[in-house]
Amino acid sequence: MLINYESAVRVAAQALENVGVPVQAARTQVSLLVEGELRGRASHGLLRLPRIIERIRNKVADPIATGKHLWRGTSYLDVDGQNGLGPVVALAALDAAMERTRDAGAVIVGIHNNNHLGMLAWYAEHIARQGYVLIAMSTSEALVHPWGGRSAMLGTNPISVGVPTSDRPFVLDMATSVISMGKIHDYAQLGKPLEPGWALDTHGNPTTDAMSAKNGSIAPFGQAKGYALGLAIEVLVTSLTASAIGTEVQGTLDSTEVCNKGDVFVVVKPGQSNVAAKISAYLDLIRASGSEDGVQVLVPGDRATAMRNRMIAQGIDLPPALWDRLRTDAEQK
Amino acid sequence: MLINYESAVRVAAQALENVGVPVQAARTQVSLLVEGELRGRASHGLLRLPRIIERIRNKVADPIATGKHLWRGTSYLDVDGQNGLGPVVALAALDAAMERTRDAGAVIVGIHNNNHLGMLAWYAEHIARQGYVLIAMSTSEALVHPWGGRSAMLGTNPISVGVPTSDRPFVLDMATSVISMGKIHDYAQLGKPLEPGWALDTHGNPTTDAMSAKNGSIAPFGQAKGYALGLAIEVLVTSLTASAIGTEVQGTLDSTEVCNKGDVFVVVKPGQSNVAAKISAYLDLIRASGSEDGVQVLVPGDRATAMRNRMIAQGIDLPPALWDRLRTDAEQK
Repeated sequence: MLINYESAVRVAAQALENVGVPVQAARTQVSLLVEGELRGRASHGLLRLPRIIERIRNKVADPIATGKHLWRGTSYLDVDGQNGLGPVVALAALDAAMERTRDAGAVIVGIHNNNHLGMLAWYAEHIARQGYVLIAMSTSEALVHPWGGRSAMLGTNPISVGVPTSDRPFVLDMATSVISMGKIHDYAQLGKPLEPGWALDTHGNPTTDAMSAKNGSIAPFGQAKGYALGLAIEVLVTSLTASAIGTEVQGTLDSTEVCNKGDVFVVVKPGQSNVAAKISAYLDLIRASGSEDGVQVLVPGDRATAMRNRMIAQGIDLPPALWDRLRTDAEQK
Repeated sequence: MLINYESAVRVAAQALENVGVPVQAARTQVSLLVEGELRGRASHGLLRLPRIIERIRNKVADPIATGKHLWRGTSYLDVDGQNGLGPVVALAALDAAMERTRDAGAVIVGIHNNNHLGMLAWYAEHIARQGYVLIAMSTSEALVHPWGGRSAMLGTNPISVGVPTSDRPFVLDMATSVISMGKIHDYAQLGKPLEPGWALDTHGNPTTDAMSAKNGSIAPFGQAKGYALGLAIEVLVTSLTASAIGTEVQGTLDSTEVCNKGDVFVVVKPGQSNVAAKISAYLDLIRASGSEDGVQVLVPGDRATAMRNRMIAQGIDLPPALWDRLRTDAEQK
């Protein structure tokens, strides 16, 4: 069902305001989710809004909290998210970090007690457009098995990197799992078999059956190296935020538990201004390098940008049941 | 040829002193290379010393430089490496960063004009043993093709993460290529075929012939995601160090060119002390999770530690020609 982009924002924001979220915070949360839709990542889109509303109703998400800031030194911002909305708490922290970066050159932010950040690319792009480099990492509920292991012991632990260029920013945003749990649910619904190597069943045996995989575990991307990277993010985020680790993490997929994962941001102001053009030229060289049979080589973000332009023109494609639910939530008053 | 660990250090350090490297700096450079041997990574071991000596003789490596420090803000250290020895310049920068971190909580270091850092795990372990978290990233000569591309446009761009635990530190250290160029050279020497998917020949076609791959390009690890990560490191390091990018990078593999790649360190003092034990307990849970057929699940660094203990007891296994060369260089005076 194709919905006009601005209608979607208006209705979704109203639904959040109806459960006590201030106007500006509702806009922030909804912008993030709609951006997921625009970039063709429905798993990080408006699909998540009903759960956020349930979490507010269940009092495991605070509609008005923006986080309590404690500076551990001039460049290390420790944030107690006070169970606020993920992007609301994160943006308040990033604003403080960017301001401090003017004098300090660089700031590290560690956030605990914060709800789900959603798509990290949104933050990376936001910060890079203001001329700063961002590295963002986050933990999440254990869904991924160690390389050679049999059960879920790591989050899908995404990493995002935003770098200013003289064109639109370079933005990497990837989970360290080979696929998302959302994709497994999609395959289960369609009755489609998974690719070999994607998942284990609940007994730790390889499976291509999406229903079995739903209660099992997902493989790390890139075999042993991807596992090692995901584990490094798990350990590093815990070290800098004193958040929960491994199978203790909860509240990123349910509607009832306080969210106890951690988020880490590294914010840096590049020291020299002449590098942005050099980076853009390099990325264009990569795009133009191509293969002999005419396949275009992509830079991270290229596909999302093309999708975004199409979606803004055509409208966002939402499941009718989700759109009905959002409209109902927006009308209740 | 098995060489006693301490003899190797003594001979190698003398060889460096003979080309003008001060005693302490020679120890630093050699400790790094010997640590590569001890961990079973000969490609980052003493094999590299003859080239370092040649680079000093060719005046593209300065035997006494330790780097010029410019603070761009209280927490962003910009280092001109002055073509010094990689680990000598890097350790001086890391010492300054750790000192500043006491007040600042976190420091970013960007280094340009520095020689090859060698094995990043050595730095991560060194910093984590002193109670700090380290993220290290480095660019290098273009050997890796973009995902879907046909020629080398990215370095093998390693990333390392060191995190203090209550046991030995957690240390990740990995290149973003699927294998190292060193391994391709090893296969070429043995006449062994490469695995499919590892490399392209000079025309950009897939090859399993190691000789063809030597002049071609290596695949990124983990397909599109690994490529995206390697590219993010290339772009981020250039942004923060204003170093060369892509095919412009030189001096990491030859003996004649000034090394123009960049290195980035993120140094943070964890805010809370109780997390180290939690991380150790989690890593032990992962190790113990195992598979039903008794395969042990490894944490990054486990294999290197086992290897190291064996090597210290048995001696380092060096090619006789290399050992002869080092002894000759150590005697010349």
